[in-house]
Amino acid sequence: MSRTPLYEEVAEAIGRQIVEGVYAPGERLPSIRELGRRLGVSVNTVSAAYAHLENRALVQARPQAGHFVRARPPEPVVRPPDGADHPATPEEARAAIARTLEDPGLLMPGRGMPNPRLLPAAKLAAMLGEQCRRHPEEAVTYAAAAGHRRLRAEIAKRSVDCGCALSPGDIVVTSGCTEAMTLALRTICRPGDLVAVGAPVHVSILGLLRSLGLRPVEIPSDPRAGINLAVLDFAIRHEPPAAVLVIPTFNNPLGYAMDDGSRRALVALLARHGIPLIEDDVWGDLAFAPTRPPALKAYDRDGLVVLCSSFSKTLAPGFRVGWTAPGRFREQLERSKALHDIAASTPPQLAIAEFLAGGGYDRHLRHLRRIHAHQTARMRECVAAAFPAGTRVTDPQGGFLLWVELPEGIDALPLHAEGLRRRIGIAPGLLFSEGDGHANAFRLDAAYWSPEVERGLTALGAYARSLAPQRT
Amino acid sequence: MSRTPLYEEVAEAIGRQIVEGVYAPGERLPSIRELGRRLGVSVNTVSAAYAHLENRALVQARPQAGHFVRARPPEPVVRPPDGADHPATPEEARAAIARTLEDPGLLMPGRGMPNPRLLPAAKLAAMLGEQCRRHPEEAVTYAAAAGHRRLRAEIAKRSVDCGCALSPGDIVVTSGCTEAMTLALRTICRPGDLVAVGAPVHVSILGLLRSLGLRPVEIPSDPRAGINLAVLDFAIRHEPPAAVLVIPTFNNPLGYAMDDGSRRALVALLARHGIPLIEDDVWGDLAFAPTRPPALKAYDRDGLVVLCSSFSKTLAPGFRVGWTAPGRFREQLERSKALHDIAASTPPQLAIAEFLAGGGYDRHLRHLRRIHAHQTARMRECVAAAFPAGTRVTDPQGGFLLWVELPEGIDALPLHAEGLRRRIGIAPGLLFSEGDGHANAFRLDAAYWSPEVERGLTALGAYARSLAPQRT
Repeated sequence: MSRTPLYEEVAEAIGRQIVEGVYAPGERLPSIRELGRRLGVSVNTVSAAYAHLENRALVQARPQAGHFVRARPPEPVVRPPDGADHPATPEEARAAIARTLEDPGLLMPGRGMPNPRLLPAAKLAAMLGEQCRRHPEEAVTYAAAAGHRRLRAEIAKRSVDCGCALSPGDIVVTSGCTEAMTLALRTICRPGDLVAVGAPVHVSILGLLRSLGLRPVEIPSDPRAGINLAVLDFAIRHEPPAAVLVIPTFNNPLGYAMDDGSRRALVALLARHGIPLIEDDVWGDLAFAPTRPPALKAYDRDGLVVLCSSFSKTLAPGFRVGWTAPGRFREQLERSKALHDIAASTPPQLAIAEFLAGGGYDRHLRHLRRIHAHQTARMRECVAAAFPAGTRVTDPQGGFLLWVELPEGIDALPLHAEGLRRRIGIAPGLLFSEGDGHANAFRLDAAYWSPEVERGLTALGAYARSLAPQRT
Repeated sequence: MSRTPLYEEVAEAIGRQIVEGVYAPGERLPSIRELGRRLGVSVNTVSAAYAHLENRALVQARPQAGHFVRARPPEPVVRPPDGADHPATPEEARAAIARTLEDPGLLMPGRGMPNPRLLPAAKLAAMLGEQCRRHPEEAVTYAAAAGHRRLRAEIAKRSVDCGCALSPGDIVVTSGCTEAMTLALRTICRPGDLVAVGAPVHVSILGLLRSLGLRPVEIPSDPRAGINLAVLDFAIRHEPPAAVLVIPTFNNPLGYAMDDGSRRALVALLARHGIPLIEDDVWGDLAFAPTRPPALKAYDRDGLVVLCSSFSKTLAPGFRVGWTAPGRFREQLERSKALHDIAASTPPQLAIAEFLAGGGYDRHLRHLRRIHAHQTARMRECVAAAFPAGTRVTDPQGGFLLWVELPEGIDALPLHAEGLRRRIGIAPGLLFSEGDGHANAFRLDAAYWSPEVERGLTALGAYARSLAPQRT
């Protein structure tokens, strides 16, 4: 079919693997015989391919030893001229900015992640190893689609903390809260449906809705009271959404925790219209106070509230252990989980169940709470002192996020670029809407506070002052 | 809003948790003060609730010690009369039968799972613990959406075995092969699209398609040659599907491995029509011969083949580590993975990368190959000897599945029921189509062969002979 000689095709394939780093410089390549066997080609073809790669200085033959990857001098990084790599659409522009915050060199990554240095990584690692050694066959075998019974029992036990008193049968374990919300949306909505979302909200949630063919409707929120119920009520009467998605407790990015009355009113409003409510409670356990606010689910009389949460903000985002209490949608959601990826990974479920059962979780939360409260206060003070007069900053009572609004007319985008140069990742307001609002706002991750971050932020504040329109 | 007294609501919630087993008999319940704090109610309310539960004999108060769950006598299991629990739809009937095969008491579960006793569970457990202890912060942190770089490099290195020579950048790590196919289908298809599937095929794949709003078209296959290309060609001309899904290597359930010419012809046919091909290669590493057949992906010149695989049949289904090489759909599929559940769980990725890098994988495959080949042969012989004359059984060259066709007129369903009584889970043909074909067929899992299973199967053969129409 192809007119390229076979040996050149083989050379091309192996050459590409070398350039892409599959084989490291100095590493021994498969023997001629072995590679021939694997690729189903003759020894002569592989010999010719290796000779070709020697000519291209990618491979070095050592007599009696085999073929090795040659070390190559590093290539210059040619950057396109300014503007040449500008993304075409607002969505691509947002994705490009979100990617800048994934740089592992940042002192504060700005992705809303917990600081791994504050997580019980060593203890979890020990429990993971110990659980798998103690139950090796169980660890390699599928858990139930709804999740491992022991983990669900531990989650149920803790659920009285948010006023719910769930039973294990109410719960489905998921790959983090994000998958819980994905499954909830897929169960409740059909492509084309509207979903009302408390705004500002991170574009990852808006992108998730779009990728499921849903149309987000951003409902504005107040940094103290939470989602605006009058607007939501109007939106429902105007064109009822198929679901409403809110983060009522230590909201991302605004930090608010809705008060009791508003929670009750929100659940009642949706119950009246029979509209399911997806509650993202992933920050709920991070209250600064000794007790956390109740979940919206605590007010649910109709099985319409789908409570979604995880251990990604408190224990280990990398474990991907989340859960949902989907109310009347449980059976369908569990079936969807079974069809789409069978079950969540077993070993992380065992480790987290053990961590919860061993009683270490509450102690760990007390520890996190103290540190987050302290660091959030320090970062607030730093913003207040360093940024231009007229800057506003939220005062959350849990979580570790701060939302900063600069005086009108100061754009957060150049600040984001300057921050990257100082290894401080701020998440500009642009990442929290599909529209063009929040241009003068940004989010900070106080979980990563350190004296060095504070110095960077202070310098960023000075830079912001230099951008402020001069009073005349 | 509610007319029930608050203490009764609290009692109801805690009582439900006790009945559902959140708290075990004899376990101490939260103290009155603690529960009041957690639920945000007064100490008096909790006292009244606990008194109420004492009256209902669910709770026992022990002076100075607190409240404890009372042991309860086991309740009688009241079974509905025969027929009362018959499911309403064929889909529900299939789901009910599939659930019978999840019974952990079965000697052979019939779910197409590897036998955990043949998996390197202890070694994987040790590697999991060791990797997490060595890289604790990495283990608790998100991997990249495409998967951990080290795992992708190891998968790329091995890809020459199936004739592909992938680079790490070609690969996206997923939660098992099932999620790889879910993401591929979501990336390629829109609701309402047709997807052609090699048939017979397990209803979990058909159900996955339906749950994504897709319409499966079952393309018949020959137990030796594989998917019927003439029928596929006709189907494409009749109404082109948005994608074609095949299991070309050690097919589930038929066991065939397509030959070189058919592979080439299949890839060329779809390339001519520009139709993406989703290749489920999850059995590919389980060849009985020392080398495995090439993947369809090896013939792909257009980036149209989405190769999907996992370590669920070879190492650890419970780890949920799979991957895909999605060709031209890579970027979009990776974005979908990031939006829907951020990334696969990190610790299992680290453990499997280490297992692949440490060189244990090939040795383990040689071990599995020998055992599966032996057990598959034993089980074939047993079927040939015990089942009615005219019974046919496949002769696979890899994997561990056998497909048995009874003489026309013998229904596999009563055999399935009789098998359950003997703790032998056979998967009746009904589970491999949305239509009513394959009624006289069933699938066996030779990975679970044992003398005890052989005895059960022999008895089942005798039972099948008793069902065979008597010759006159």
